[in-house]
Amino acid sequence: MNTFGNIYRLTGFGESHGAAIGGVVDGMPAGVTIDEAAVQRQLDRRRPGQSDITTARGESDKVELLSGVFEGKTLGTPIGFIIRNSDFRSADYGNMRDVFRPSHADYTYSTKYGGIRDYRGGGRSSARETAARVVGGALARQALESMGIEIFAYTSRVGSVEVPVPYTELDLRAIDDNIVRCPHAATAERMTRLIREVKSAGDTIGGIITGVIKGVPAGLGEPVAGKLHAMLGAAMLSINAAKGFEYGMGFEGACRLGSEAMDSFYRGKDGGIHTTTNHSGGIQGGISNGEDIYFRVAFKPVATLLRKIDTVDLDGEPVTLDAKGRHDPCVLPRAVPIVEAMAAMVVMDAMLMNRCATV
Amino acid sequence: MNTFGNIYRLTGFGESHGAAIGGVVDGMPAGVTIDEAAVQRQLDRRRPGQSDITTARGESDKVELLSGVFEGKTLGTPIGFIIRNSDFRSADYGNMRDVFRPSHADYTYSTKYGGIRDYRGGGRSSARETAARVVGGALARQALESMGIEIFAYTSRVGSVEVPVPYTELDLRAIDDNIVRCPHAATAERMTRLIREVKSAGDTIGGIITGVIKGVPAGLGEPVAGKLHAMLGAAMLSINAAKGFEYGMGFEGACRLGSEAMDSFYRGKDGGIHTTTNHSGGIQGGISNGEDIYFRVAFKPVATLLRKIDTVDLDGEPVTLDAKGRHDPCVLPRAVPIVEAMAAMVVMDAMLMNRCATV
Amino acid sequence: MNTFGNIYRLTGFGESHGAAIGGVVDGMPAGVTIDEAAVQRQLDRRRPGQSDITTARGESDKVELLSGVFEGKTLGTPIGFIIRNSDFRSADYGNMRDVFRPSHADYTYSTKYGGIRDYRGGGRSSARETAARVVGGALARQALESMGIEIFAYTSRVGSVEVPVPYTELDLRAIDDNIVRCPHAATAERMTRLIREVKSAGDTIGGIITGVIKGVPAGLGEPVAGKLHAMLGAAMLSINAAKGFEYGMGFEGACRLGSEAMDSFYRGKDGGIHTTTNHSGGIQGGISNGEDIYFRVAFKPVATLLRKIDTVDLDGEPVTLDAKGRHDPCVLPRAVPIVEAMAAMVVMDAMLMNRCATV
Amino acid sequence: MNTFGNIYRLTGFGESHGAAIGGVVDGMPAGVTIDEAAVQRQLDRRRPGQSDITTARGESDKVELLSGVFEGKTLGTPIGFIIRNSDFRSADYGNMRDVFRPSHADYTYSTKYGGIRDYRGGGRSSARETAARVVGGALARQALESMGIEIFAYTSRVGSVEVPVPYTELDLRAIDDNIVRCPHAATAERMTRLIREVKSAGDTIGGIITGVIKGVPAGLGEPVAGKLHAMLGAAMLSINAAKGFEYGMGFEGACRLGSEAMDSFYRGKDGGIHTTTNHSGGIQGGISNGEDIYFRVAFKPVATLLRKIDTVDLDGEPVTLDAKGRHDPCVLPRAVPIVEAMAAMVVMDAMLMNRCATV
Repeated sequence: MNTFGNIYRLTGFGESHGAAIGGVVDGMPAGVTIDEAAVQRQLDRRRPGQSDITTARGESDKVELLSGVFEGKTLGTPIGFIIRNSDFRSADYGNMRDVFRPSHADYTYSTKYGGIRDYRGGGRSSARETAARVVGGALARQALESMGIEIFAYTSRVGSVEVPVPYTELDLRAIDDNIVRCPHAATAERMTRLIREVKSAGDTIGGIITGVIKGVPAGLGEPVAGKLHAMLGAAMLSINAAKGFEYGMGFEGACRLGSEAMDSFYRGKDGGIHTTTNHSGGIQGGISNGEDIYFRVAFKPVATLLRKIDTVDLDGEPVTLDAKGRHDPCVLPRAVPIVEAMAAMVVMDAMLMNRCATV
Repeated sequence: MNTFGNIYRLTGFGESHGAAIGGVVDGMPAGVTIDEAAVQRQLDRRRPGQSDITTARGESDKVELLSGVFEGKTLGTPIGFIIRNSDFRSADYGNMRDVFRPSHADYTYSTKYGGIRDYRGGGRSSARETAARVVGGALARQALESMGIEIFAYTSRVGSVEVPVPYTELDLRAIDDNIVRCPHAATAERMTRLIREVKSAGDTIGGIITGVIKGVPAGLGEPVAGKLHAMLGAAMLSINAAKGFEYGMGFEGACRLGSEAMDSFYRGKDGGIHTTTNHSGGIQGGISNGEDIYFRVAFKPVATLLRKIDTVDLDGEPVTLDAKGRHDPCVLPRAVPIVEAMAAMVVMDAMLMNRCATV
Repeated sequence: MNTFGNIYRLTGFGESHGAAIGGVVDGMPAGVTIDEAAVQRQLDRRRPGQSDITTARGESDKVELLSGVFEGKTLGTPIGFIIRNSDFRSADYGNMRDVFRPSHADYTYSTKYGGIRDYRGGGRSSARETAARVVGGALARQALESMGIEIFAYTSRVGSVEVPVPYTELDLRAIDDNIVRCPHAATAERMTRLIREVKSAGDTIGGIITGVIKGVPAGLGEPVAGKLHAMLGAAMLSINAAKGFEYGMGFEGACRLGSEAMDSFYRGKDGGIHTTTNHSGGIQGGISNGEDIYFRVAFKPVATLLRKIDTVDLDGEPVTLDAKGRHDPCVLPRAVPIVEAMAAMVVMDAMLMNRCATV
Repeated sequence: MNTFGNIYRLTGFGESHGAAIGGVVDGMPAGVTIDEAAVQRQLDRRRPGQSDITTARGESDKVELLSGVFEGKTLGTPIGFIIRNSDFRSADYGNMRDVFRPSHADYTYSTKYGGIRDYRGGGRSSARETAARVVGGALARQALESMGIEIFAYTSRVGSVEVPVPYTELDLRAIDDNIVRCPHAATAERMTRLIREVKSAGDTIGGIITGVIKGVPAGLGEPVAGKLHAMLGAAMLSINAAKGFEYGMGFEGACRLGSEAMDSFYRGKDGGIHTTTNHSGGIQGGISNGEDIYFRVAFKPVATLLRKIDTVDLDGEPVTLDAKGRHDPCVLPRAVPIVEAMAAMVVMDAMLMNRCATV
C-alpha cells in the first residue's frame, strides 16, 4: 500500500539505493499554475547534506516532472515524476546483508516478505522515500496557495530543549532562518548546539515538530471515517520515525475539565462565526471550523548510531555491527518540509472531497 | 466517508435520534464461528446508563445481525446489522435547532452541509455512532481470538489521576472489575471519586486510554501508506473526542537519545528473534515485530456541561444555552470498548492484507 | 467486495432467505429532496409476482430508510436501509443443500468459501440482492432528475423477437405500459406471448435490454481507469445473468469502416457543439459529449428450469434435481428497473467525481 | 482516476507527446522471479511500426524498471517504471491546437478540463497510454505463469472477415505467426488483405478480439461488486476504441432458451467437478468455475482518416482538417497484447483478493 489520499492521491515507489524514487500524483485538478522551481526548492529543504547537523549523504535530488503539466498548467491528468538516486555507496551497506539493525525495519521487512529485502540503506523503509511525498506536497501547496491556504511546520523541541511560547507568538516566516528550522532564534541556537554535541558523541536525538495550517475554510473533513484530524494523524504517523500525533489541546489539554477546554463562539467583525480560544485546534467533530489548525508530531531518535552495536544476524546469532552509513544525528530539521508536504496533501484532498458535500 | 478499512471494512450509518444506527461488515472471511451473545456483551460495555459515572440515557442497544452468518458461521458475504434507537427524548433537543453548542460539531456540520443538519443530539456527529464500530470490532475480535490475538484497553489517566505503573505490571483481565475500567484498583477508586466530583459540579473531565495488543505475529502492516501504527492512529483519532495518539515510546520517549531508545535483538528460547526492550511498541518501520503493541489515546472532556453556557445562534447572535440532554461526565469508561473495537478491526484488516505479501 | 462506486457508493448486504437485505448509500450530497414513495415505486417495478410472466414469489419488498434523510432532505450522511425478507419458503430449498444446480453459483460459492454457503435460494448469489441496488439507484435518480438527467431502460429483445426500430423512434414514457416493459406495443405483445409459451414448456428465455440516458452534460467520466462507459459496463455486467455490454455502435457497428462510423461535429442552434450522428453513444474517449448515452445489455435465460435436471452433488455424484423454487421464465421485465438503477448510480458518481476536474 | 485494480494495482501516467509515460505497479507479492526481457517483448508486440498494417510512428518503447525488483526477484514493494517518448513530431499536431477531431476525445477533454488540454497527439487520451498497461500486465503474467495460468488473445474478426471456428479448434501458440495476430492462417491472410485495402483508401476498419484464459482455479471473483467478468469487462472497455464486451455465450447465446444454454456438471477423471459444455465462459455467479474463461471485445475503427475531414474549431466554427499524424488503419493487431495485459492484471488481482475468502 503505497498510495496516500482519496481524490488527490500520491502513489510512490522506490528503494533507497535503486535506480530512482518517484511517484504519480493523480487527482490534481486542471488549471493550476505550476512553478517547477518551487517544487525543487521544497526538495532542497529535505535534501541530505544541507548543513553540518544533517547526514553527509550528498544526493542532489533533482526532480523531473514527466507528465500532467503542459504550458505551465496542470492538465487534470496524472503527474508522474522521478528523482534519480546518485552518490549512493552501496558498498557501505554490504555488511548489512546478513544483519538486522536494531530498531530499524530490517527484521520486520524480512519477515513480512519471506526473507527477501533490499538491504542497501533500508531499501523501501528508508526515509529517502519521503522525497516523493515532498514533491506531492509541493504540488498540492501550489494549488492551496491560490486559495489562500498556508502551511507551516517547525522544530519545536529537540531532546529537552523546547520553544517556550506557542506558535501564535512566533514569526512563522522565519522558520528557514536557521539550520534547525526553529523560528525562535534563541531556542534554535540551543537546539543546534545540542545536536552537535549528540553527533560528536556518535549518538542521535529526537524531538517534536509543530505544524500550523492557516486559511482553511470551515467545512473540510468528512464524518466518521474521514475526520480531518484523523487524516492528518495518519499522514504524519506514516512519516519515518514518527511516534505520536496530537492536535489542538493534545494530550495534556485533554486531561483538563470541560469548563477549561471549551471554545466559545462569537460573531467577528467580518460577520463570520469564530471562537474566542482554540483548544479545538481548528477542527470540531472532525471538520474544520475556520480557525488555525495546529498539531504536534513526535519523532524518535534515529536508531543508527555511529558506534559498535550488538545485534543479531538472519539466524538470530549475535553479531556486532559497526555502522558506516551516513545518517542524521537528528531528523527533525529535514522532517519539517515532509510534515508540511503531508499536511498540504491532506488539506488538498479534503478540499476536493468537500466539493461533493452539497447538491 | 463512512467506511473503515481496506479488506475488512465497516461501513456505518445512523443519526443519534433517527430510526436506527447500523452498518455493514464486508471482507470477513468465511468459516469464522460467531457468538452473537459475545457481540452483544461488547455493546453492553459501551451502553449508556451502565453506572452512575456515565450518562443516564438508557438505550438497550440490542444488535440484530441480518446477514452473512449462517448456521453459526460466517459465509464470507457482508454482515449487515442494525441497532434500533429508543428512549430518545428529542424534545430535549428542540432548543438546539437554532443554536451552535460550543466545542461540538453543530457549527461545522451546518457549514459543511449548506445549513442542513439533524440537530437532535448531534445527529451523525454523536458518539452514538460508535456502537456500530463496537459491533464491527466484536466480529473481528472473534476471528482474531482464534488466531491467538488478544486486545485490551483501559483507562490509564483521568484528569491528573494516573496509573503509576506500565501496562506490563497490570492484570489486564481485571479491566472490567470496576466501573471506570482501570485494572489498577487503587487508581480506579481515585478516578471514580474524581469523576463523581466533576459530575456534581456540572463539569466534565478528560483523560487517556491505553491499548495493548498481544499475540500479533511479525509482518503485519504495509510500507509507506499502510503502516500499522498509522492505521491504528487514524482509527483511534476517528473516535469522538480523541485529541492525540502515541505508540511505543510516544512523545516523551521520542525526545531522548538514540542510545536510550534502541531495542536490542536477541534469540529467544523459542528460537525466534525478540527485543530486550520494547520502546518500539511492537512496530518497526510500520510493520509488527511480534512484541506487544501498545499505544495511548487522549480523550478531551465532553463539551456539554450541565450549566448555562453562552454561545451563538445560526445568525451569530449571542444566546444562552441551558443544556438538558444527558451526557457523560467522563467518556473514558465507555470509550474503552470502542478503542478495543477499532484496534480489532485494524489488526484484522492488516492480517488479511498481509496474506498478499508473498507469492 | 460489495461496494459500488467511488464517491456515490452503495454497500449492500443480504442473503435471499436471511432476515433482510439492505445497504448503505454513502456520498449522497446534502440537500436533495427525497420522495420515499418514489423509491418504493421503483422497488415495486422489480418486485416478484407483479404479473403472470414473472416468478410467483410474493415478497412485498417494503423498504425502510433508517438514516441520512431528515425533514424530507438528505443530510449528507449515509443512508442506511433494509428490506425484510418474507414469504420465503426455505423448505422449497432443503433439497438444494447437497446439490449444485447447473449454471448457478452453487458450486463456485462453495469452492470459494471452503464449502460454506447459504444454500437457500442461492443465498447472496440470488438476484434478490439487486433490490438494494434499486434503492441506491432510486435515490441517485432523485438527485439527477433535479439536474435534468433522465434514465430509461426497456426490453428490446426476447429470444429472437426484437424491437425493429432504434430507441430514437420510441416513446420512452410508454415503457411501463405493458408487463414486458417494451415501449413498442406490437413487439411487446409478441414478446409476452413468447414468454408464456416458454413458461408453459417449463423452460426459460433470455434477451437484451437497451438503456438510454438523456441530459448528461459533456465532461463526465475520467481518463483511463474511470471511463464512463467502462463504469457503466462494469455496473451492468454485475447484474445477475448479464453476459454482455455494448454502447453506441456496439459490436456490429465496430466492424465497419472509420468513414462510416465517424460522428461529425457542428454548432447547434443553442450555440453548443453537437454531433450529426451518434455512433459514439454519447461518450468519446471515455467522457460524455452531451449527446444521448445508449447501450445494450445481454441477459441469459435463467438456469432454473421447472423440469427434472441431471447434475451432481457435493461429492460430484450424479443426482437428479426437481426444482421446486419459483423462478422467472424471463428475467428481463424485472431487470429493467435494475439496469436503470445501476445507470443512475454510475452517472451520479461521475457527476460528483467531475466536480474535482478543474481548480 | 488512473489506477486499475484493488490489490494488484497499476497507476499510470503520461501524455502521448510529453517526456515519458509510465506507471507504478503496487501489490505485487515478494518473491516473483522477473524476466525483464520478457516484459520488453510484450511491449514490442504493442509497439508501433512493427508491420505495414500498423502506424509508422517509430517509438522504440524501451521500458526501464526503477524499483521493486532486486537481484531478479520482486521485493513486495512498488515497481515504478518509465518509457521515454521519442520520435514524436509534435509539429505534425500544431494544427490540432484549435480543432476538435471528430470521434476523438479532443472536445470532451477540453470541456471537462476547462479548455486546458495537451492537443499533441491526443495527450492522455492517446492509446500510447496503454504501453504502461502492457508493462503492468507483463509483470502480472510472470506471476501467473508460475501458477499455471495462461492468457491468450487474438484477432477474431476484422470488418466482416471472421474466424470460422471457435477458439477451441485453434492453436493458440500460433497467434504471433502473422502480423494480424490471428491463429487461423487463411483468415489471417484475408484480414491482412482487407486492412491493406482499407489503408490504401485512407480509411480505417474495426473488428473483434477474442480472449482466452486457461488454468484459472475455481473460486476467483467476488460477489456482487467484484464479479470476475465485470472486472474483466471494465478492464477491456477501458482500452481505447473498445465498444463492447461479452463473455461465454455472449449476446447471441443469451437470446436462447435456458434448456439450450445450460452447462451440466459431471465428475471428471481427475476427480474434480467440470461442465460438459461451457456456455458460462468459465464464470458462474461472477466466480470462476475452473473451465476456460473466454470473452470477446469489439474495437471500433480509428477515427483518424488520412483524408480531408470537416469538423469544428474551439468556437464551433466549421473547419477542414487534413490529418497528418501517423495512425493505424486497424488497431486490432496491436490491441492483442493490450487485451492480454488487462486480462493478466484482472486475474492477478482476483487471485490475491481470493486469498482472503476463508479464515
